[in-house]
Amino acid sequence: MQLKKKGLLIVLSGPSGVGKGTVRKALFAQKDVNFQYSISVTTRTPREGEKDGVDYFFKTREQFEQMIKENKLLEWAEYVGNYYGTPVEYVEKTLAEGKDVFLEIEVQGALQVKKAFPDGLFIFLLPPSLEELKNRIVTRGTESADLINNRMKKAKEEIDMMDYYDYVVVNDEVNLACEKIKAIVTAEHCRRERVAQMYKKFLEVES
Amino acid sequence: MQLKKKGLLIVLSGPSGVGKGTVRKALFAQKDVNFQYSISVTTRTPREGEKDGVDYFFKTREQFEQMIKENKLLEWAEYVGNYYGTPVEYVEKTLAEGKDVFLEIEVQGALQVKKAFPDGLFIFLLPPSLEELKNRIVTRGTESADLINNRMKKAKEEIDMMDYYDYVVVNDEVNLACEKIKAIVTAEHCRRERVAQMYKKFLEVES
Repeated sequence: MQLKKKGLLIVLSGPSGVGKGTVRKALFAQKDVNFQYSISVTTRTPREGEKDGVDYFFKTREQFEQMIKENKLLEWAEYVGNYYGTPVEYVEKTLAEGKDVFLEIEVQGALQVKKAFPDGLFIFLLPPSLEELKNRIVTRGTESADLINNRMKKAKEEIDMMDYYDYVVVNDEVNLACEKIKAIVTAEHCRRERVAQMYKKFLEVES
Repeated sequence: MQLKKKGLLIVLSGPSGVGKGTVRKALFAQKDVNFQYSISVTTRTPREGEKDGVDYFFKTREQFEQMIKENKLLEWAEYVGNYYGTPVEYVEKTLAEGKDVFLEIEVQGALQVKKAFPDGLFIFLLPPSLEELKNRIVTRGTESADLINNRMKKAKEEIDMMDYYDYVVVNDEVNLACEKIKAIVTAEHCRRERVAQMYKKFLEVES
């Protein structure tokens, strides 16, 4: 009998500039993290310290467009003049092996992945500025009405983005955000639907 | 403006003898646990080392039946000739203060609590014997068919009980079970429905 467990697809996303890359790096620097990082493909030039095959697979526009044509990308997006994408093969192979796969991608891409993997675990990283804004307003700060109104507009857009996600983690402190992400993955492995399904399957097969 | 967050009601339950009390004690012996234990009321005699007001509130049958009459119990059950119950006042007061409340109760009681608090967090503690049984069968053990059939029947009953719960934690190792329970609580505080609701409320009020 085969009782193979499929891995979880974990997607970390959030507004641009929220610090997704920093959290992802801190997470994978920890020893007790046993999910696999799926490296993205991009056409942008490497930033200082970034290595090909570690931070990204760096490709030319021609190479990237070829991957799109051949359906080799789970999701892709053009962002500030550069392409970003996730190679589909690695994700499917690793999940089938029962290992959890971790993606760190832009919001546009996350929505595409949700269509292909509705059972994935979608985590929204929230800017601490939003949390600060809330606290400031709640405690009746002294900011001008205009300034607050502008911030509220932007906040509203970011909050609306949350709706497609399962979890929200405030990135106020990188280590704290990492702990929360690890807890979310641990908890998801304990979800009754996942556990019961496995047990029921083994009873059906045998009885 | 009031943005008061209500606490989570966490219910740990599972089949008799699974070790709910042991896990609860180990959990509350840890320093980073910041949920409140709701002490149960019982008519059974204290076991060695058990203290009134710490492990249970020990009451007479008359006192207990009075509490039932006065609707002072969130749930109660008679089990092997003794009453067990949860005082409702402490639970409601503590949740309203924004603190998480932890109950460790029998399966019958958990179903009653679910009716009153459908938003509660219901965690099912699974006997390691079931996990072992599964592994033994999966790896095609050498046990007799009768013995396996009997165990399968009991396993089926226990698995059917899971259906009312949100999470399942195998009690193979107490510390591991504690870690998982803590992770589940952390993750639940990050659930989008809870977080987004709070942010949306603050935007509505202000804008």
